[in-house]
Amino acid sequence: MSSVPQGRVYFVGAGPGDPELLTVKALLLLRRADVVLHDDLVPDEIVSLAGPHATVISVGKRCGAKMITQAEINRLMISFAQRGSDVVRLKSGDPGIFGRLGEELDALEAADVDYQVVPGVTVALAAAASIGASLTDRRTSSKVVIVSGHRANENGSAEHTDWRQFLANDATLVVYMPGRDVGALANQLIEAGLPATTPSVLISRVSRLTEQQSRCTLGELCSATAAEAPAILMVGHALVRARTFAKVEMQAKTHPQFRERKF
Amino acid sequence: MSSVPQGRVYFVGAGPGDPELLTVKALLLLRRADVVLHDDLVPDEIVSLAGPHATVISVGKRCGAKMITQAEINRLMISFAQRGSDVVRLKSGDPGIFGRLGEELDALEAADVDYQVVPGVTVALAAAASIGASLTDRRTSSKVVIVSGHRANENGSAEHTDWRQFLANDATLVVYMPGRDVGALANQLIEAGLPATTPSVLISRVSRLTEQQSRCTLGELCSATAAEAPAILMVGHALVRARTFAKVEMQAKTHPQFRERKF
Repeated sequence: MSSVPQGRVYFVGAGPGDPELLTVKALLLLRRADVVLHDDLVPDEIVSLAGPHATVISVGKRCGAKMITQAEINRLMISFAQRGSDVVRLKSGDPGIFGRLGEELDALEAADVDYQVVPGVTVALAAAASIGASLTDRRTSSKVVIVSGHRANENGSAEHTDWRQFLANDATLVVYMPGRDVGALANQLIEAGLPATTPSVLISRVSRLTEQQSRCTLGELCSATAAEAPAILMVGHALVRARTFAKVEMQAKTHPQFRERKF
Repeated sequence: MSSVPQGRVYFVGAGPGDPELLTVKALLLLRRADVVLHDDLVPDEIVSLAGPHATVISVGKRCGAKMITQAEINRLMISFAQRGSDVVRLKSGDPGIFGRLGEELDALEAADVDYQVVPGVTVALAAAASIGASLTDRRTSSKVVIVSGHRANENGSAEHTDWRQFLANDATLVVYMPGRDVGALANQLIEAGLPATTPSVLISRVSRLTEQQSRCTLGELCSATAAEAPAILMVGHALVRARTFAKVEMQAKTHPQFRERKF
């Protein structure tokens, strides 16, 4: 170990994709980071906000294809921090939602490396905002259940989700990474007992300029074509609002003064 | 109706309290708003980021005591927008989580007033970040259930929550507004079948300088004193990390350069 003071690792939520949905804190940390280790899902527009002298490394994996192992990511964070660099570990959305944050924090604690977690806007919140729906509504929905469609257990093998546990009629169900076969997922939900008439929204690339929305019922979703990743599926009566949203939708993609703004 | 072009209403998430956890977009909108209508829970530090010429009105209610009715809030938003003002309707956390967003959007649509929703960091994400825990963890937690401890039905009367529906062993349960009697709530969860040994974290004033954390088991929570509002309760095995977090906790409240920074 050198005599250089150790750096700190900041786990920073990059939000859903729109750079304007970064938190102020994320933007400040990104600008002054010595090293940025980012997931593949974080768009270039955000990664490029790092300072000109930052070392920027993509440590992502996409569609399950690992470019770099978790152990290697851990080693990178630790060795940069031990050499005195402040590291931003940039994760899509919020670091604490399906981001393997716990494992990375364990590794840092074992190596006695200092860290801080900076929350971000998780994609469920941005998806609901984009379609003008509220995830809770005291008239229809008293809870939000966030689950991953693509689950892996500790050994990396896929697990089957028992959808019956989500049947509470007044929940809004949000499925991250619903996978290529959304129709099959919708069928499983209907077989588990959710009415085929339940309002559903499937959104790809939430908050980006290429965002795609598909609003329908759970039954109509059964014949849906694959949603382009990254996608999110939301199911529940609170989403009935989304079906009346066409009027506003076309202009929702932000005032030009924001898009043109340089950070 | 006048010939002035109508303004737009922006529903903006103010995040959990720390001004640095505002999104960049929220900050920009707040700075250029003609009118800011904010909930009581949004701290002065954030409200004061509005431009010097903005009309700023608190429309909050606290501890259930209504200072202004929902209908009056709706009327204010609509009349300001119809007179050509851009309105920021500033809500604590994320607008779509326990914020009555749906009702306010319905009112705007009925009045044909244009709007946009800007998501924010909901307090669950900031609370987990603050204690160095991940809400999901592929080793222990595959889902997050967000529920309100203080529920009211459409008529405003309190409803009883059936906690048994949250018993899935691999969920992280997040209770917003757990109320004054957290011990009673913990008892209900144990009676519903959750083990008394389940790791639990109760946090008041998440992300503010006066944040208070209480980390214990669900059983230990039964004798807890009242948490100061606004508070949040998190229960689940993913939170076991929080119990090892004391080392980092004391320094987690941010680098001085951020605290001193003026927006």
